[in-house]
Amino acid sequence: MKKAVVILSGGLDSATCMGIAKDEGYELYPITFHYGQRHSREVESAIKMSEYYDTRSHKVINLDWLRQIGGSSLTDISLDVPTSGLTDEIPNTYVPARNLIFIALATAYAEVISASALFLGVNSLDYSGYPDCRPEFIQSMSKTINLATKNGVTGMNIKIETPLINMTKAEIIKKGLELGVPYHLTTSCYQGKELACARCDSCRLRIKGFQENKIIDPIDYEKSIVWN
Amino acid sequence: MKKAVVILSGGLDSATCMGIAKDEGYELYPITFHYGQRHSREVESAIKMSEYYDTRSHKVINLDWLRQIGGSSLTDISLDVPTSGLTDEIPNTYVPARNLIFIALATAYAEVISASALFLGVNSLDYSGYPDCRPEFIQSMSKTINLATKNGVTGMNIKIETPLINMTKAEIIKKGLELGVPYHLTTSCYQGKELACARCDSCRLRIKGFQENKIIDPIDYEKSIVWN
Repeated sequence: MKKAVVILSGGLDSATCMGIAKDEGYELYPITFHYGQRHSREVESAIKMSEYYDTRSHKVINLDWLRQIGGSSLTDISLDVPTSGLTDEIPNTYVPARNLIFIALATAYAEVISASALFLGVNSLDYSGYPDCRPEFIQSMSKTINLATKNGVTGMNIKIETPLINMTKAEIIKKGLELGVPYHLTTSCYQGKELACARCDSCRLRIKGFQENKIIDPIDYEKSIVWN
Repeated sequence: MKKAVVILSGGLDSATCMGIAKDEGYELYPITFHYGQRHSREVESAIKMSEYYDTRSHKVINLDWLRQIGGSSLTDISLDVPTSGLTDEIPNTYVPARNLIFIALATAYAEVISASALFLGVNSLDYSGYPDCRPEFIQSMSKTINLATKNGVTGMNIKIETPLINMTKAEIIKKGLELGVPYHLTTSCYQGKELACARCDSCRLRIKGFQENKIIDPIDYEKSIVWN
């Protein structure tokens, strides 16, 4: 059975990737990074998601030192997470080189277990403007990982699959609902509290996606949302 | 003062990179990875090297889970390190995606401290055939890291400097001796014992390099070496 490493944050996008990879017939090998993010609650969501999909193995990797080097409001609690909506600038929730690091680490894992695919839930439409979510980064990284590895030399390339990259949040949710992705187990809010704040960029994009599908989001928010 | 992150293993090549970066006028920010390698003694060498160069900060990052995923005789003590000399094959001392991971992590650090260069002591002549030491990997990675980061978007590119990539081991040592690199503080042997084994690929390349310079290596070996 072909194997896929799925970079699983516990959020909505990576959960949808799990559903897509399973639907495409892959045996799922999720990998989750605990990097000192204030919403480490999402790691618990990732664990529940792995259990839901009955995966054989779920790697949870501690990268706490990413918090130590700082540079992001997601890992530095002295910085405020923006709550006034998306702008044209890269927000302070950007974590330096996060997807570069995640893909590098997942590549090592994929090589060791002989996985042929590496799924990553980036998207470049309804997103926060992070540079490492752009198609040009993914294309360049796809080439680079196969130059870096023994697999690449022997012709057993690892393919980075980003099925969501050109989808809106609404399209992602529609796809996930079709595949039965358990969105009630996911966590998106950057604040990492028990109830989602509904104001951070991540909540705003998620709410908009459910609203456009005319579906009520199954998670709980700290204020009431008008679900059309 | 311009800043450089130097990926410092504690071995001979990265020590030479420290000397070169210093000579080029950079303020040195070494970063060392403890990845469960059997020769973790080299981490102690890296710490001594950082002290020797009186660096302001030395990051030592724990990546012990690289040992957990295995796939290399450097991290899996059930596999033997080869001692019969280099062949055309990639040896089992290859650590999956190691330089991909190290550069990714060092990129995040470089971005946070606003370093303009990232020094890496790879070389593609007297080496063990690892795919992630080849110029084509470095070229591709150089492009990729700047697509992954905010710095790249704002035009403050980080440059991967690999000054040793086209040098023989003898040329590297010659350069290092000119720059006063303290080779007596370095550790190269893959076996990680108190005395270098003189038989693993890393020892063989090091000994050859000193012999070609007609210089006695200042470190101790477990057997006597003919130094010409």
